[in-house]
Amino acid sequence: MDRLKRYLPILDWGRDYDRQSLVSDLLAAVIVTIMLIPQSLAYALLAGLPAEMGLYASILPLIAYGIFGTSRTLSVGPVAVVSLMTASAIGSIASAGSVDYIAAALLLAMMSGAFLLLMGILRMGFLANFLSHPVIAGFITASGIIIAFSQLKHILGIQAHGENLLALLISLFEHIDDTNLYTLAVGIPVVAFLFWVRSGLKPLLVKMGLSDYAASMLSKTGPVFGVVATSVVAYLWALGDKNVSLVGQVPTGLPSLTFPELANPAWKELLVSAIFISIIGFVESVSVGHTLAAKRRQKISTDQELIGLGAANLAASVSGGYPVTGGFARSVVNFDAGAVTPAAGMFTAVGIALAAMVFTPYLAYLPKATLAATIIVAVLSLVDFSILKRSWTYGKSDFVAVATTILVTLTMGVETGVACGVLASLMLHLYKTSKPHMAVVGEVPGTEHYRNVNRHKVITHSNILSLRIDESLYFANASYIEDRVYELLEDMPLVEHVILMCTAVNEIDLSALEALESINARLKDQGLKLHLSEVKGPVMDALQRSHFLQQLSGQVFLSQHQAVQQLAGDSGQTTSHNWEI
Amino acid sequence: MDRLKRYLPILDWGRDYDRQSLVSDLLAAVIVTIMLIPQSLAYALLAGLPAEMGLYASILPLIAYGIFGTSRTLSVGPVAVVSLMTASAIGSIASAGSVDYIAAALLLAMMSGAFLLLMGILRMGFLANFLSHPVIAGFITASGIIIAFSQLKHILGIQAHGENLLALLISLFEHIDDTNLYTLAVGIPVVAFLFWVRSGLKPLLVKMGLSDYAASMLSKTGPVFGVVATSVVAYLWALGDKNVSLVGQVPTGLPSLTFPELANPAWKELLVSAIFISIIGFVESVSVGHTLAAKRRQKISTDQELIGLGAANLAASVSGGYPVTGGFARSVVNFDAGAVTPAAGMFTAVGIALAAMVFTPYLAYLPKATLAATIIVAVLSLVDFSILKRSWTYGKSDFVAVATTILVTLTMGVETGVACGVLASLMLHLYKTSKPHMAVVGEVPGTEHYRNVNRHKVITHSNILSLRIDESLYFANASYIEDRVYELLEDMPLVEHVILMCTAVNEIDLSALEALESINARLKDQGLKLHLSEVKGPVMDALQRSHFLQQLSGQVFLSQHQAVQQLAGDSGQTTSHNWEI
Repeated sequence: MDRLKRYLPILDWGRDYDRQSLVSDLLAAVIVTIMLIPQSLAYALLAGLPAEMGLYASILPLIAYGIFGTSRTLSVGPVAVVSLMTASAIGSIASAGSVDYIAAALLLAMMSGAFLLLMGILRMGFLANFLSHPVIAGFITASGIIIAFSQLKHILGIQAHGENLLALLISLFEHIDDTNLYTLAVGIPVVAFLFWVRSGLKPLLVKMGLSDYAASMLSKTGPVFGVVATSVVAYLWALGDKNVSLVGQVPTGLPSLTFPELANPAWKELLVSAIFISIIGFVESVSVGHTLAAKRRQKISTDQELIGLGAANLAASVSGGYPVTGGFARSVVNFDAGAVTPAAGMFTAVGIALAAMVFTPYLAYLPKATLAATIIVAVLSLVDFSILKRSWTYGKSDFVAVATTILVTLTMGVETGVACGVLASLMLHLYKTSKPHMAVVGEVPGTEHYRNVNRHKVITHSNILSLRIDESLYFANASYIEDRVYELLEDMPLVEHVILMCTAVNEIDLSALEALESINARLKDQGLKLHLSEVKGPVMDALQRSHFLQQLSGQVFLSQHQAVQQLAGDSGQTTSHNWEI
Repeated sequence: MDRLKRYLPILDWGRDYDRQSLVSDLLAAVIVTIMLIPQSLAYALLAGLPAEMGLYASILPLIAYGIFGTSRTLSVGPVAVVSLMTASAIGSIASAGSVDYIAAALLLAMMSGAFLLLMGILRMGFLANFLSHPVIAGFITASGIIIAFSQLKHILGIQAHGENLLALLISLFEHIDDTNLYTLAVGIPVVAFLFWVRSGLKPLLVKMGLSDYAASMLSKTGPVFGVVATSVVAYLWALGDKNVSLVGQVPTGLPSLTFPELANPAWKELLVSAIFISIIGFVESVSVGHTLAAKRRQKISTDQELIGLGAANLAASVSGGYPVTGGFARSVVNFDAGAVTPAAGMFTAVGIALAAMVFTPYLAYLPKATLAATIIVAVLSLVDFSILKRSWTYGKSDFVAVATTILVTLTMGVETGVACGVLASLMLHLYKTSKPHMAVVGEVPGTEHYRNVNRHKVITHSNILSLRIDESLYFANASYIEDRVYELLEDMPLVEHVILMCTAVNEIDLSALEALESINARLKDQGLKLHLSEVKGPVMDALQRSHFLQQLSGQVFLSQHQAVQQLAGDSGQTTSHNWEI
């Protein structure tokens, strides 16, 4: 039963579901539904898909996540970054809006769902940790910029395409003379209105006497007013005849359930993209889930989240949707609106389904510029360059990883960008560990504590070289460490004992063991003894499985202090100085 | 001048060159020349190239290395593994022995030389450290097996091809009925003779009254007797008419100097192979160079070695050779024969040049089976599965890396094999650091030393959780560590202070800093204080550039002992126990 609950979290929270939870969840669902309708349509547009696919992607996937997901408040559906990645993935194999394009979107959702499910079953959630926070932050900022610029053409009413930001800008510039002023007259006011909604609406509502909560919730529904108002304007003034792009006829009713064509030869080309979309979507979703869960002292299980998101994407693929994940903005609204269980998401699905059955005829007159404005205002809140400054101040290698991610994403596209970011952060980490910090240490007077001679006033002995290696010993740094030990000894003719202080050595692999054997043999030739101190349990276990401890010319000491006390002897003069290594 | 000497080591050793060095070097050169003639011919055969190209690759490259290389005794020239990799690289773009094939070999040497030179100028020698010893050992063993089986066809006198070991074995089996008994009658005795030379010749010579040194050197020239004897047999019995493959007409004289055709469109296909060959050749050469230099307390410079090997490969490409590197067997012979400077290598070059001018007419009758036998006996000494056992005993992750390398090399070829080996070892390292060992620690009675409560009898305080994290904190383990801290605290309701003992923390990156901030905030909410102890200098420097230390609810202590002394207070009961975490 516990095992079943782990795989079906609904059995856990569903059992205690009560009237109070129902009221809270229903209220949250109403607010999220109203917010989600324009967003779903807009993100479908961003993905190059018919508007109704955005709605379809917000129905069944929410039900599936509600059954399998572990976050109580995560709101799943189409999101900006994944929509952009979808467009970029299928844009290269079919032209936007074509039958092949739609088939590819369904297949992509299916593959992404299958991949997430597989990762979940294999409990590979930890892999997401290799995407560092700075890389994600950089990636989302760069994606936000690309998305915002990609929507400018809808505000201007022109054609423009570009694989990367530069190409996009050039294309926009080339076509700027074709700008449709009617479209612009719709787009600019909506952008202005939506920006005002973000910052100005809530204070106004509070001033009008609404409670803080009511004002906050009502202001989230602002975009709907933009949708209604511009649709009415477009209808009354027949803007469609003036070449303003409208959403047009949208099928009314629920999506039919169909299984995507698996024999589609596009799957090979989509494979890498499906993996990228899965990982980025998963990481974004899990980080939102973690943040919200922590606020209420709840927990999410990363491996089960893979299963929940996998189920959501499979649901999207059989119900006319496209890849989905947990979105930041909508989840925060869901949380703030008081959702207490995933039932809120399920009620939202019902709300969107009703919208698909009832409101779709009215979408015919909705200008695309309104949706583009919704996207631009939404993604510009994702753009945040402060991570560049923060990482520059804190540590240069994080900065390099962020800068690489942003630059490559902007110039070479989203998949290359995130791949280069991950590679850069891994390579930098490996590079650092391949040339580890090493410190000659001495006793802090009056304690049994040993610290760097360059940073502290400490006592050292002329016949002892105490060396602290600040890294695990492994193949990438084994020969570097060997060389450094010999170099240090060249200037210290009085040394009889070399003590390697192993507090920071968490592993000694076979290559490093060979290096230690070679250091031991060479020191022995020179009449010096090699000792180890403060070797940790797991490392000692490994050494005991080798012949190294039998060959070791010196001893292994429990603590550095014991080692120095025993080896300093009478011969060792003690001095307290600051030297350079 | 010192800078010039760094780039031209010949200026260093050449200045003190004296008569005694000359005698030693000349003697070594004679022995190595005699050993190198059959080997050079054989490795050219292995690479699918005309026999004379093996000789050519042993002339100018040795001179070039002598000028630029830093090892006193390394012997450069064609080697088994690089010859196999050459065959595998150019075999896919041209048929063996064709004009295109030869042009590709020259181009490959040029590209490999340029790459090595570039790496040397950029001082990127440290990159070789990422190839771990176990991976190299596994790769060489697997390559040796492939090479030995690839030469069986010459012993049997049949045709056989295969991209990997299995395909090769199947192909051999399919053609086994075509076995030429005359070829076999040459091949088997030579293999037997060469094995006997390895083990039986030296003791025999010693018994006959030769000194140990003379016997050892003379036994190295054994393969030449095989070459002479089988050539005579083939001439006398006209084995060529009996379909025994002979080396045939070989051009007499020195190679003409020509620049390879750079406009060759094959360069794109060869690029990856050139990089692989460079890296493998470099790593093999440097490890031999290190080993030999250490025996005489000499040093080699890895970055300058890149330049030396780069120059050798460029020299090979302009003088009709193919990719070369420092070989293990011949370098050991050179060393044992008493070579004291790279002049020995230059004299060897003169020896091979003389051979190319004088002896080549006699090679016409040399059976290819003899050369194949030379290769088989040479490479079987490289095959050593003991690394599997050694790594299995010592540490499973080294074992996985070796096993991956061997299996993939055998089944999917040399380049894929070494790439998978490197990836596997890096991934395993990253995986381990992503789930670090963590220990709850207590005071070792009577000392100021703190160790794992599960391994030592130590004193702990019920109001303090002292946690030692045995790894640097970085993006890959940040959230794992955060989760573990919360998990541990769940079972310890009395704890008021959490001390993270940072002896093994060599870095805290931005992702980990965020995790620490979140731990700090959550503990504060619960009324707990977070402290750090024994934070290293470089880590403290980084933390001081952030706002973390201002937010920290507790303090940073110089040592764990000070932290516990101050925080235990009166309230803390002291207990000594062994518990499970």
